[in-house]
Amino acid sequence: MARVSQEHLDARRRQILDGAALCFARNGFHATSMQDVLKEVDLSAGAVYRYFSGKEELIGAIVAEVLEAVRDTYERAALESPPPLPDVLIPRVLEQLKAVRPGVLDGGEWVFPRLMIQVWTETLRNHELAVAMSTGYDKVRAAWAKVVERYKDAGLMPEDADADAMARTMIALAQGFAAQLALFGTVPTKTLQDGLRALMSMGGVHRAAVN
Amino acid sequence: MARVSQEHLDARRRQILDGAALCFARNGFHATSMQDVLKEVDLSAGAVYRYFSGKEELIGAIVAEVLEAVRDTYERAALESPPPLPDVLIPRVLEQLKAVRPGVLDGGEWVFPRLMIQVWTETLRNHELAVAMSTGYDKVRAAWAKVVERYKDAGLMPEDADADAMARTMIALAQGFAAQLALFGTVPTKTLQDGLRALMSMGGVHRAAVN
Repeated sequence: MARVSQEHLDARRRQILDGAALCFARNGFHATSMQDVLKEVDLSAGAVYRYFSGKEELIGAIVAEVLEAVRDTYERAALESPPPLPDVLIPRVLEQLKAVRPGVLDGGEWVFPRLMIQVWTETLRNHELAVAMSTGYDKVRAAWAKVVERYKDAGLMPEDADADAMARTMIALAQGFAAQLALFGTVPTKTLQDGLRALMSMGGVHRAAVN
Repeated sequence: MARVSQEHLDARRRQILDGAALCFARNGFHATSMQDVLKEVDLSAGAVYRYFSGKEELIGAIVAEVLEAVRDTYERAALESPPPLPDVLIPRVLEQLKAVRPGVLDGGEWVFPRLMIQVWTETLRNHELAVAMSTGYDKVRAAWAKVVERYKDAGLMPEDADADAMARTMIALAQGFAAQLALFGTVPTKTLQDGLRALMSMGGVHRAAVN
């Protein structure tokens, strides 16, 4: 039997995950069969089942990979001194997601936002997936909170700001922006950036009004 | 035949819409039948079809009502001088949505966030719904942009800030926060408020760093 390189195994795994992600993004998790995935990746059942036991394992791996990529971006940002401000960091996460999953393109469209919404719907009725999502989300939140603590260290944010609240709010922003991409088509990342800057520009005024 | 008051007709319509929203939030639009809706509202087919021709019309009416309530909140905010800042206004929209749809409670849970995600999924494959969503979203955006212009009039935001970008970003925040409610359960509105304040507090710093 021919010796198979690790690169080959990794590439095959990548191919299967991207094909499955494409199917789930198009038709949703529920309406996608393993047969659809086999057809999409153009591999035999034997070749695919060597890597994944079925749909549940595929969606679990996709969610874990995405959340890990997001967490990693924030962990690395927390090591920068000071970390990039939100109007740079949130667009960076979106770019990072595109870089991690170059295979997930359907006719030139980045299908991740649609996939995200399909996964959310499945989360509402799939307890195991809900637990995986919740665990991964907690890790992303913790990584974001580290960034907030570095903002404080650098004097970029008041000491008494709520790091977890800021983390949840920043994640909400990224989630909502991705939802808009799925629902309404292309929105330039610059729009998100300009919007964030406009919002951040209100801070001094707010403090002045409150004090 | 007994004369039926307008209040009675309105209440009946409300009852049907809330029952349908509950069904859609629980099982999604696709998996819900008109039979499920009839059972939920405990009315005869004749009574329900007098108001709505079917599932499509029900989901269309629900989406229109929600987007109209959101738009109305921003339109009214734009009349205040100055309008409430985002950390007050976005929580107000969420409260407003609760007030508009008191019937949409399942065992004490506010099911709107789950309904929102189910509607988004359906939007991905239902062109008519996608058009209705897009039109309603444009109106909400325009109303938010009016609020931003009032911020500028009041000196609360730089004249050159991009009003539409700010509107899209603020809507993303509300959408993402609602998604978190659906996916991870209760998150206090105060968390969103504290997160927004933390973000807004970075503005002065940001300007200083750039200039």
